[in-house]
Amino acid sequence: MKYQFFNDYSEGAHPKILERLAASNRKQMTGYGEDEISLQAQALIQEAIGNPAAAVHFVSGGTQANLLCLASMLRPHESVIAAASGHIHVHEAGAVEATGHKIETIASEDGKLDPRKLVALLSTPRDEHMTKPKVVFVSHASEVGTLYSKAELEALRAYCLQHGLYLYLDGARIGSALTARDSDLSLAEIAALTDMFYIGGTKNGALLGEAIVITNPALQPEFRWHIKQRGALLAKGRVIGAQFLELFADELFFELAQHANHMAEQLANGLQEQGFGFLTPPQSNQIFPILPDVLIEQLQQEYGFYVWAPAGDGMSAIRLVTSWATEEQAVHAFLEDMRGLA
Amino acid sequence: MKYQFFNDYSEGAHPKILERLAASNRKQMTGYGEDEISLQAQALIQEAIGNPAAAVHFVSGGTQANLLCLASMLRPHESVIAAASGHIHVHEAGAVEATGHKIETIASEDGKLDPRKLVALLSTPRDEHMTKPKVVFVSHASEVGTLYSKAELEALRAYCLQHGLYLYLDGARIGSALTARDSDLSLAEIAALTDMFYIGGTKNGALLGEAIVITNPALQPEFRWHIKQRGALLAKGRVIGAQFLELFADELFFELAQHANHMAEQLANGLQEQGFGFLTPPQSNQIFPILPDVLIEQLQQEYGFYVWAPAGDGMSAIRLVTSWATEEQAVHAFLEDMRGLA
Amino acid sequence: MKYQFFNDYSEGAHPKILERLAASNRKQMTGYGEDEISLQAQALIQEAIGNPAAAVHFVSGGTQANLLCLASMLRPHESVIAAASGHIHVHEAGAVEATGHKIETIASEDGKLDPRKLVALLSTPRDEHMTKPKVVFVSHASEVGTLYSKAELEALRAYCLQHGLYLYLDGARIGSALTARDSDLSLAEIAALTDMFYIGGTKNGALLGEAIVITNPALQPEFRWHIKQRGALLAKGRVIGAQFLELFADELFFELAQHANHMAEQLANGLQEQGFGFLTPPQSNQIFPILPDVLIEQLQQEYGFYVWAPAGDGMSAIRLVTSWATEEQAVHAFLEDMRGLA
Amino acid sequence: MKYQFFNDYSEGAHPKILERLAASNRKQMTGYGEDEISLQAQALIQEAIGNPAAAVHFVSGGTQANLLCLASMLRPHESVIAAASGHIHVHEAGAVEATGHKIETIASEDGKLDPRKLVALLSTPRDEHMTKPKVVFVSHASEVGTLYSKAELEALRAYCLQHGLYLYLDGARIGSALTARDSDLSLAEIAALTDMFYIGGTKNGALLGEAIVITNPALQPEFRWHIKQRGALLAKGRVIGAQFLELFADELFFELAQHANHMAEQLANGLQEQGFGFLTPPQSNQIFPILPDVLIEQLQQEYGFYVWAPAGDGMSAIRLVTSWATEEQAVHAFLEDMRGLA
Repeated sequence: MKYQFFNDYSEGAHPKILERLAASNRKQMTGYGEDEISLQAQALIQEAIGNPAAAVHFVSGGTQANLLCLASMLRPHESVIAAASGHIHVHEAGAVEATGHKIETIASEDGKLDPRKLVALLSTPRDEHMTKPKVVFVSHASEVGTLYSKAELEALRAYCLQHGLYLYLDGARIGSALTARDSDLSLAEIAALTDMFYIGGTKNGALLGEAIVITNPALQPEFRWHIKQRGALLAKGRVIGAQFLELFADELFFELAQHANHMAEQLANGLQEQGFGFLTPPQSNQIFPILPDVLIEQLQQEYGFYVWAPAGDGMSAIRLVTSWATEEQAVHAFLEDMRGLA
Repeated sequence: MKYQFFNDYSEGAHPKILERLAASNRKQMTGYGEDEISLQAQALIQEAIGNPAAAVHFVSGGTQANLLCLASMLRPHESVIAAASGHIHVHEAGAVEATGHKIETIASEDGKLDPRKLVALLSTPRDEHMTKPKVVFVSHASEVGTLYSKAELEALRAYCLQHGLYLYLDGARIGSALTARDSDLSLAEIAALTDMFYIGGTKNGALLGEAIVITNPALQPEFRWHIKQRGALLAKGRVIGAQFLELFADELFFELAQHANHMAEQLANGLQEQGFGFLTPPQSNQIFPILPDVLIEQLQQEYGFYVWAPAGDGMSAIRLVTSWATEEQAVHAFLEDMRGLA
Repeated sequence: MKYQFFNDYSEGAHPKILERLAASNRKQMTGYGEDEISLQAQALIQEAIGNPAAAVHFVSGGTQANLLCLASMLRPHESVIAAASGHIHVHEAGAVEATGHKIETIASEDGKLDPRKLVALLSTPRDEHMTKPKVVFVSHASEVGTLYSKAELEALRAYCLQHGLYLYLDGARIGSALTARDSDLSLAEIAALTDMFYIGGTKNGALLGEAIVITNPALQPEFRWHIKQRGALLAKGRVIGAQFLELFADELFFELAQHANHMAEQLANGLQEQGFGFLTPPQSNQIFPILPDVLIEQLQQEYGFYVWAPAGDGMSAIRLVTSWATEEQAVHAFLEDMRGLA
Repeated sequence: MKYQFFNDYSEGAHPKILERLAASNRKQMTGYGEDEISLQAQALIQEAIGNPAAAVHFVSGGTQANLLCLASMLRPHESVIAAASGHIHVHEAGAVEATGHKIETIASEDGKLDPRKLVALLSTPRDEHMTKPKVVFVSHASEVGTLYSKAELEALRAYCLQHGLYLYLDGARIGSALTARDSDLSLAEIAALTDMFYIGGTKNGALLGEAIVITNPALQPEFRWHIKQRGALLAKGRVIGAQFLELFADELFFELAQHANHMAEQLANGLQEQGFGFLTPPQSNQIFPILPDVLIEQLQQEYGFYVWAPAGDGMSAIRLVTSWATEEQAVHAFLEDMRGLA
């Protein structure tokens, strides 16, 4: 096997992050995320979003972040709206339902939601025989690699505000989204346009860790209770705090994401040059080229990646994911080998 | 502040663990705990308990381990029996109840359960108006630092088997328990005497991480579903795998615990020499001396520790916890300062 | 308003049922459904399905029956498969999700499931990132009035047995289904082809009450615990027992359903004669004729019914429901008035 | 068996209630509790409590009322405080925990709570490692037959208001409580002193049914969603509406309770005359005389009742319950037979 494009969590952490972890390793600190390092990291994130009143909490993974954030926002009869491709619906083993809440799905080819799609779902009047939608869940970048534009996110936000809905954003790949060539959204703007979101560390160079950001003051109180109750409060909270401290101390978070994007872009360009199309427009560090099944089988001898969906006519979409650690020469080798096989 | 005896998670990880994490950092591996490192670590633990058929899973914390293990064992109407001092009852923010299950508590001064206490709870015949107890939860070492002897654990196990109950052991501090001077139980014996338990890493030198061990074959299938559903499946599973690999590669796990015990023993001996008694017999790395409130206040100027419970006559029990990282000179300084104050 | 065809629970109970309730009213009996009357009613139902080993339990409503039956069958990570039109998905306010389980839906124009549809859902291999489907939920008659044939139910059952799935049948309108002209299924056959189902009383002449029937012995133990835990165990259980005793003492259950079907058939025939089509073939006591919107508005002046769905070209499907109490002259009046308006 | 004093739900309904059910039986009405009869009954209850802004909802049983009311009031990390003898803790099969919430118990010999007991529980500062108590649950009459005085309920209420706690009252036997000789509380006062409570019908002459009353406006919105989600919304809501209409149209509710109390009082007086003491002071329709075990066994030949708890010295407390239907001659027979046996 020459190289794996399976995902962006195949490697460990960026070396600087390991160094930061080691730096204050022996020092005694307060537990459960109230240590000095976590507090500094929280302050850096508040600064990065330009909102000192935002609450910031660190947890270890994306499913954990989603289940505890959503459950904290909902009364028992309330539900979440998500694209049918949404991670919470497809790949979290029923984690949201296990907290007691229905996910109401909307079909969406590009993995995104917009007010028009919400109207279609919400036009039927709701009564007590149905659930009451309360949170709109979006992923940025989406599960199929696409991005929201600023105008799109503003439109969603306006719709949510008008209809008493919270807007929650899953930012497992927000680094890649923010540094994408097509992006016109800043971290501060995303914070301003949502009620709660999380900044993904695991898929952007951290060992583990996501930073939950709560800008809506009504949703901040007693959030640590929810973290604890779901088993997400780490005794040595600094483990994640130190990583986000390193990621946001300079621009490491953005640099790592940019590298991943750059690698994905080279892949996408190379594939386009070879005449291949894509399931969704390549925008972030996940791209979905459509290749002949025969070629896919040959590539799988040497490269790791997922076959995403059949595309008809003996073709399938595959998923190629790059990371902060993807080597340029692996990208070149992949494209060259394809040329040789085609 | 000279030193903190607040708990055993005030420091980071043992340096060897950090080195192990760094060693294979850049290598691409399978995600979600199915990487080569995690597999090796699982094999070492199977070996340590002498049971190659046991299932071993790594999760990030104790509350998480407890809630997902217990929920995986129970049907909706079934409940857990625990000492009233049990961590799941007192300090997990209702995590078990949030999965839908009642905890039935038994008062216990020494933090332990025994068949006699279970008989008292279970002698009332149960019908559908009550819950049906199905799991007995014990902590070893207990929340008040006490230990089960082999005979005690065997008696509990025999009772459980007779009454169709599972026996689950919270091993957050199992390292300290196993290496305690009073201990006559091995890790293999604990594995053989329980249906499911976990080996605590966080409180014994790891950055984070607990190893869940399932010896009852009926409880093994589809356990990874439960892990995922509760948000406990780390994308970079090797983060915990590597730590347990280091802990169990040689005897590091036991050496670290032994050090903590040794420090606690020195504290206990010194306190005894000064004429103080204890809330519970000092056996592991948590000890509960009973001191005059005046002295406690003075000590708090220089040392960190929790005041546990009033003991009458102007005295209180405090909790002193030592760890793999506790420095001998801190112990001596504490005892000396006490002598000075008394 | 001349008459309501809104639903089959607009009236109270058949007079014989009220008489039966009154008959033994004063007599002291055991509580919680273990009275002599409930026991007799259970025996009658066991007889009606030809299975003395079946467990029979009475609860007060359909949503209650569904949520408690399904939750009793599932481990935390398991899910239910249902048609997208399934009552549990659309009209039970998230009751199943509130017990912690996802419903996986399949689009179905006729409101029914079949092995081919299940294959499409289940062909993707499942791992721990997804839920594990365990129960197939069907409604008979379906929410759009359609019926399973014996061959169809046998095919579903065979598929479920092959794939380790339970088959659960919501029989809120099973009376109408069984006595429909197109029906080739008996109550005994339904019992034999499912693991658990319920016989709807509320929509077939009872004041309230559904009879849950569990034929799979593995699902019978401790079911009363589940009933109690969900708040569904009535202190005066005889209230429902007496009603089912009356319904199954002679053939009242079937006679009432037959009357409802007869009324629906007259409506359907009359509408067909007037040239109207239907959303789904009229088979049971719910029919869905497609009428011009103008006509619908006029009819609504005098008759109560729900407008179900737009059908294009200025037409909509409406829902007409008949019951044990529907008066033949109301049916005639409705058809005549239509003729006058057309 | 001459007579049963097992409970107050051994008989059916008061004949007037059955008549009321039959009276409008055939009339077509709106479903799900929005029928004219239920609306009238709600208005009568609003009048009885002197609060036209109160929300009134009818459900079928007490466990159902408790689980849905409490779950509607709580966020995930919040808990309920109850006496250890509280019905929700002891006899509801973990129904409250199944909605995700812990019950925190307080030992109480008389089955009641007071501010002093709450202070003891709440004096430990709470952080995110514990649950956050939010509702105080009391039963009136309590599970051991005792009553709150007006001063006691006012003190509880004041404490709750000061500490941000809701006060919820389980009124399964509120009829007996209100009409007890010792009672100085009116229904209106109870309504004014609680946030939510329910008026028990099942144990006071109805076939089934409890009336939930919500006086706190913040807890009223979308309550019907909760009812539906827990399977508690009856299609033919009038079944319960009609019963409460009859109970509150004149004074039937109070008359029935008074009769039960009167019968209990005669029993208590007779037992006292024979020299027997009581576990708790006999105040309502449940009394707990302490009798010699030998006598108990003889009485059980002819009378049905529960043996409640051993009382030492070869004595036990038994529970005798009277109802609206208890016959005076049964009371006399019981006392006379006792005299004969003693």
